[in-house]
Amino acid sequence: AVIAVLAGDGIGPEVVAEGVKVLQAVAARFGHTFTLREALIGGCAIDAAGEPLPAETVALCREADAVLLGAVGGPKWDDPQAKVRPEQGLLGIRKSLGLFANLRPVQVHPRLIDASPLRPERLQGVDLIVVRELTGGIYFGEKRRERGPDGEWASDLCIYTEEEIVRVVRVAAQLARRRRGKLTLVDKANVLETSRLWRSITTRLMREEFPDLQFETMLVDACAMHLIRRPADFDVIVTENMFGDILTDEAAMLAGSMGMLPSASLGSGRMGLYEPIHGSAPDIAGQGKANPLATILSVAMLLRHSLDLAAEAECVEAAVAAVIERGIVTADIAAPGQPTYSTAAVGDAV
Amino acid sequence: AVIAVLAGDGIGPEVVAEGVKVLQAVAARFGHTFTLREALIGGCAIDAAGEPLPAETVALCREADAVLLGAVGGPKWDDPQAKVRPEQGLLGIRKSLGLFANLRPVQVHPRLIDASPLRPERLQGVDLIVVRELTGGIYFGEKRRERGPDGEWASDLCIYTEEEIVRVVRVAAQLARRRRGKLTLVDKANVLETSRLWRSITTRLMREEFPDLQFETMLVDACAMHLIRRPADFDVIVTENMFGDILTDEAAMLAGSMGMLPSASLGSGRMGLYEPIHGSAPDIAGQGKANPLATILSVAMLLRHSLDLAAEAECVEAAVAAVIERGIVTADIAAPGQPTYSTAAVGDAV
Ligand SMILES: CC(C)[C@H](C(=O)O)[C@@H](O)C(=O)O
Ligand SMILES: CC(C)[C@H](C(=O)O)[C@@H](O)C(=O)O
Repeated sequence: AVIAVLAGDGIGPEVVAEGVKVLQAVAARFGHTFTLREALIGGCAIDAAGEPLPAETVALCREADAVLLGAVGGPKWDDPQAKVRPEQGLLGIRKSLGLFANLRPVQVHPRLIDASPLRPERLQGVDLIVVRELTGGIYFGEKRRERGPDGEWASDLCIYTEEEIVRVVRVAAQLARRRRGKLTLVDKANVLETSRLWRSITTRLMREEFPDLQFETMLVDACAMHLIRRPADFDVIVTENMFGDILTDEAAMLAGSMGMLPSASLGSGRMGLYEPIHGSAPDIAGQGKANPLATILSVAMLLRHSLDLAAEAECVEAAVAAVIERGIVTADIAAPGQPTYSTAAVGDAV
Repeated sequence: AVIAVLAGDGIGPEVVAEGVKVLQAVAARFGHTFTLREALIGGCAIDAAGEPLPAETVALCREADAVLLGAVGGPKWDDPQAKVRPEQGLLGIRKSLGLFANLRPVQVHPRLIDASPLRPERLQGVDLIVVRELTGGIYFGEKRRERGPDGEWASDLCIYTEEEIVRVVRVAAQLARRRRGKLTLVDKANVLETSRLWRSITTRLMREEFPDLQFETMLVDACAMHLIRRPADFDVIVTENMFGDILTDEAAMLAGSMGMLPSASLGSGRMGLYEPIHGSAPDIAGQGKANPLATILSVAMLLRHSLDLAAEAECVEAAVAAVIERGIVTADIAAPGQPTYSTAAVGDAV
């Protein structure tokens, strides 16, 4: 199998290096051949090629069976007035590969309950997954910025078609069927027209194709609350792009650290892009402090979804659980007073 | 002073009744005359007048010095396809009165630390206020829903002008100056054009008019995380309408219950609209279970901001603190095993 490796900026290269180690260990142990091909994305691509998503990178990814990505962005390219920004690379690759469904599972490892700002009793039984629509909505609608007689104004258009909604809801509902059978649609149907479209299309689809599932709708403001108040009640959440961005970062706090959470971005085929949900964390880049587990768990998702290697994926997940159990963790999730390990030490241990 | 009273739907009338009690007690104790005028809004207005915001209601509010509002909405009017919805009343009154700055303070009473899903140590020193832009953005931009050859599509336009941004940021910065001197702008400047406009205008305004304040910017996804991880670090947060809606409900969890949090919606003059941040909670309506403290604390904000009665406001806040201290609270914030009191009993105690 061919795997495109886009390390990106900040801590991206460090955590991706550990993900690659794990891929190589899996290849050796299970007798697979993984061909890894590196390419540029984000700030490092701007520096090297003048654009955040060079055509070679897209071409390489299109030929690959899966993409492993680190993170993009950093203060060096942070000018909001700039025409070329690292994030365009990330948004561009998602869009060009048609990766419309972003899966972000949240589980709380028992050893990490103390790393979460939430009370332990709220975290019992938390096992949810957010399916975020990734190639539509306000992220990709028309953007304008103009100067009028009374000063400047700007706009972003949030737009969704029936087809965009149907395909991602199907992914989420199929997932729910293999889990606890519950789907929650999160929207703002009391205010937004797009949300009302999401609600009517999803309600119809659930009735027609997934009558066996438990289906509920929830307003995004209420969800921001319930995610903290009663997180164990959620199974699969499906939502639009912007709400998914906010809610998944919030949900990451359940797991104690952004450094724990993997993600998979899928399209209609098997190919997918796998990345930790955390960013490039420029403040700790290059110091060996970054938690590689989110990337390593993303590798597990890659093995399962894109390469159909379920046993190998479970093996990686078990190894991650074992190193947490043995306390070989980076500072972000170490218990107070416990020793902390470097990015590479954690990767080696896995 | 003339105060318009819009009780609304669900628990609205119950909690507003307690707010009115407190207003009357303040009038008696301090020798003021408050003229209370009731009017319809939301679902009850749809039932009585066929529209969620009758012209008389707007006229009454325009003549008043302040508006006290309960909550709107309920399952009876919940059809997302309906042309007339209760929320239009709420959005309409905010817009027609030009109430562009929505202030939502979050403090954690020491006795209520155990009601929060967060660990006690995270809640030490939490004292923040979110200033949410209330009459612009995606809430009020053009909405479309159409059927094309490939099915339906819908859109919502998020649009902001320089003037809309400047006026609400000024309110927030002036507040910060009277508090701990720190302002955080929350946006999504790495994706949205409107956010980039917010960021450049706010940065310039802070440099030119408020160089004495500490100013930072934060992405909305990061903020959703930091609100739970290190809430005590925030002083004043200013943000656009949709982000403010989500973040304030999330922040409400710090205080243990939505039932504790008041809000003030202000325009350019003294007149303001005061309401609890919670909704109409149809599931507990009419049972005397609703927590009236958010409404009573909204009355305190009303006295302070619209009527310039600071001593009276402090007196109400002290009374609320005292009933919490004495454990005279509704079920949502009662400690396990403690007796719980009805809406009216809590209002009487205040
Ligand atoms: C970097 C940014 C554009 C991106 C997003 O908003 O999608 C990130 O926050 C994420 O969640 O993957
Ligand atoms: C009821 C709804 C329209 C409203 C809003 O989104 O503004 C509510 O959630 C609020 O926060 O006051």
